[in-house]
Amino acid sequence: MSKIFIKNSTIIPMTAKEDIFQGHLYIENGRISALYRLDEEPSFALEQEDLEVIDGQDKVLLPGLVNAHTHAAMTLFRSYADDLPLMQWLNEAIWPAERKLTAEHVYWGTMLAIAEMIKAGVTVFADMYFFMDQVAKAVSNSGMRGHLSRGMIGFGPNAEVALAESEDFYKSWNKGAEGRIRVWLGPHAPYTCPPDYLKKVMSLSDRLGTGLHIHLAETMTEVQDIEKAHGQRPIELMHTLGLFERPVLAAHCVHLTEEEENILVEKKVGIAHNPESNMKLASGIAPIESLRQKKAIVSLGTDGAASNNNLDLIEEMRQAAFLQKVHRLDPTALPAYSALEMATIGGAKALGWDDEIGTLEVGKKADLILINMKQPHLYPVHDPVAHVVYSAKGSDVHTVIVDGKVLLRAGKLTTIDEEEVMAEAQKAALLLTAKE
Amino acid sequence: MSKIFIKNSTIIPMTAKEDIFQGHLYIENGRISALYRLDEEPSFALEQEDLEVIDGQDKVLLPGLVNAHTHAAMTLFRSYADDLPLMQWLNEAIWPAERKLTAEHVYWGTMLAIAEMIKAGVTVFADMYFFMDQVAKAVSNSGMRGHLSRGMIGFGPNAEVALAESEDFYKSWNKGAEGRIRVWLGPHAPYTCPPDYLKKVMSLSDRLGTGLHIHLAETMTEVQDIEKAHGQRPIELMHTLGLFERPVLAAHCVHLTEEEENILVEKKVGIAHNPESNMKLASGIAPIESLRQKKAIVSLGTDGAASNNNLDLIEEMRQAAFLQKVHRLDPTALPAYSALEMATIGGAKALGWDDEIGTLEVGKKADLILINMKQPHLYPVHDPVAHVVYSAKGSDVHTVIVDGKVLLRAGKLTTIDEEEVMAEAQKAALLLTAKE
Repeated sequence: MSKIFIKNSTIIPMTAKEDIFQGHLYIENGRISALYRLDEEPSFALEQEDLEVIDGQDKVLLPGLVNAHTHAAMTLFRSYADDLPLMQWLNEAIWPAERKLTAEHVYWGTMLAIAEMIKAGVTVFADMYFFMDQVAKAVSNSGMRGHLSRGMIGFGPNAEVALAESEDFYKSWNKGAEGRIRVWLGPHAPYTCPPDYLKKVMSLSDRLGTGLHIHLAETMTEVQDIEKAHGQRPIELMHTLGLFERPVLAAHCVHLTEEEENILVEKKVGIAHNPESNMKLASGIAPIESLRQKKAIVSLGTDGAASNNNLDLIEEMRQAAFLQKVHRLDPTALPAYSALEMATIGGAKALGWDDEIGTLEVGKKADLILINMKQPHLYPVHDPVAHVVYSAKGSDVHTVIVDGKVLLRAGKLTTIDEEEVMAEAQKAALLLTAKE
Repeated sequence: MSKIFIKNSTIIPMTAKEDIFQGHLYIENGRISALYRLDEEPSFALEQEDLEVIDGQDKVLLPGLVNAHTHAAMTLFRSYADDLPLMQWLNEAIWPAERKLTAEHVYWGTMLAIAEMIKAGVTVFADMYFFMDQVAKAVSNSGMRGHLSRGMIGFGPNAEVALAESEDFYKSWNKGAEGRIRVWLGPHAPYTCPPDYLKKVMSLSDRLGTGLHIHLAETMTEVQDIEKAHGQRPIELMHTLGLFERPVLAAHCVHLTEEEENILVEKKVGIAHNPESNMKLASGIAPIESLRQKKAIVSLGTDGAASNNNLDLIEEMRQAAFLQKVHRLDPTALPAYSALEMATIGGAKALGWDDEIGTLEVGKKADLILINMKQPHLYPVHDPVAHVVYSAKGSDVHTVIVDGKVLLRAGKLTTIDEEEVMAEAQKAALLLTAKE
């Protein structure tokens, strides 16, 4: 495996705000092997033949961004149906198109999402969808890192199939792609997975020793429906069922009572906040600053491209900060560094993967990105963290390294044929959305 | 003057949603001289020596974006002080730094802003600041279009100076830079310009036959202070004073009663909505969807880079749409096409410049942009308007033409030395923010 030396960069390790420094970083065997201050002499020869040297001048170096909640293949439905009421969007546009999905479509849709995400600095994504073997294959082929869950609907003939397939998927792909894949179970939501079904999911997750990725409290309608059916709100109900007794990645968490916030904090639930999806679908504003102040595990997701409509985590960081500020009428809410934490170490924690990723520390996996700061919209430089969160674009990402391998070099993808992926995605999209 | 033929593009003329078509556009003498359907034969020879042909394949062609409210030179304070309470931000960071500004600083800060704006598809900006001769010089040198107002504070020894300088500035620069500059007066706000002073401003504006650019109803504090001092809310007070009897560009308009909304509609006031600044400074959420439904003239601005922190109108369009949707809990609020109208023809109307810019129509000035759609985050293409508003980034802008002159060619600035501008801006910023 190759060795990489990134020199002369502004390093934002995301261990603590005061740890930002000018220096170098050395990668060996897929892991961060050393960090040096600018004036420190590396302990290895810089002239080794298999050493790649990357110039970090005028760039910031930080952990790869964690997209903690998405449905990658939904890139195929990007801009297919916008500005519609939620149920009309689902019933008339998204669901009919999704019913036509084949394994091959999901492969190309996921590759398109991965291409987009790598180009914007995302190094790992938590995905919940169908045909997950194809998603795993896309992760494997692209060099990306993936936290994958087969979406499970707990009624109808496919409910038991989903359990069996999830177990198969776990056995085939957990720790797959040289360890870049982790598999969790994906019970879709309280309104699609009744309590009895969730109990089966929990028992499977315990048998496999894995966590759960679920949508929780996304809309007011969900909260009202669950309360009507079960006498408890979604988070309360999950708590009563014992769902939080294992690692849980909970997407959205928009509508919470104070007590529900406390449950999420106490049970260390990973919360994936999706501000742009929540805004575009008009779901509401999640109480993220309140959760953060209570030391909840907060992270950021884009949700699928059909409700966003891109997979740009930098935009999502900015949105999270802006939305909390205006929501609380407090400009000090969710400051830049905290938003960056959500997109890096917060995401790693929410995915149960902070043992290996989320910060730049010796021994961790080399998942990291360089952002090119020498551009008019990132000048002058008073505060690099504020620049990354408030001014940067996904297109400012210059280099992306996952597991010690360069996936983006000077803005160019190294493992993906972008033209082929776009052409295949366009072909699939036209088929899926063709009028009968 | 050169001739330009843009061929094979998706043309979004912004005259009406159903007018989008595949075709070509021809520019002569700085104006749009013809529009052709894909299969139409141009009426001129394509082999002329002085004809530049631009390939519009895989690109959308639309009117240049209008940044209807900014303080361009404040790029110098980008990321200087974020996440602070408003008064602390102004008193401890921005104002002390602004007091040190020289003419040269304003020139370089404005050039930096112009470089950033051109690269993100902005072709005209409405600016209110100091040392406006320098801003005009930057507009003139860069080939940009500018709607310029000297900011006027109506008390203290400089109040009268501001009136005299505004008149001088009008006489020197209105219709300057080959007609690319229009000068309006810039009374800062009701809380900095008492009624007696505003009367002098109005009388000057009538004498010169120009409009006014002013901040109105930006914060709750302003509304409360004005109401306390004058017994009326800001918009009511301006109405009573007769301010709206001439063209007015009103920035922010966040806190409005139903009656104030109606005044703005009836008096055809140009409203510059600045969603990201309003979010970041926690000012509040302007009732833009309501105003739009009432047929108000609504446009979009970035405000200064210190409260945004970039000058990206595409981001601002998306933000405007998302913010109205979540604010009204209605996913149909401010649809994509309406957001694009705000950023183009809406902006042109708000600046009183729709006689020359804002749509792609024969006879109008050739201010237009091409966005490169052949990128993973803009694939597949179901709806080009939704892509521009919900998925694109400023960096997707490929070509920018102002007044028939190419200012950005394949992403490269043609009139600005980017390296020089960044270096000078960094130098100025360090001086301005140095601790005493």
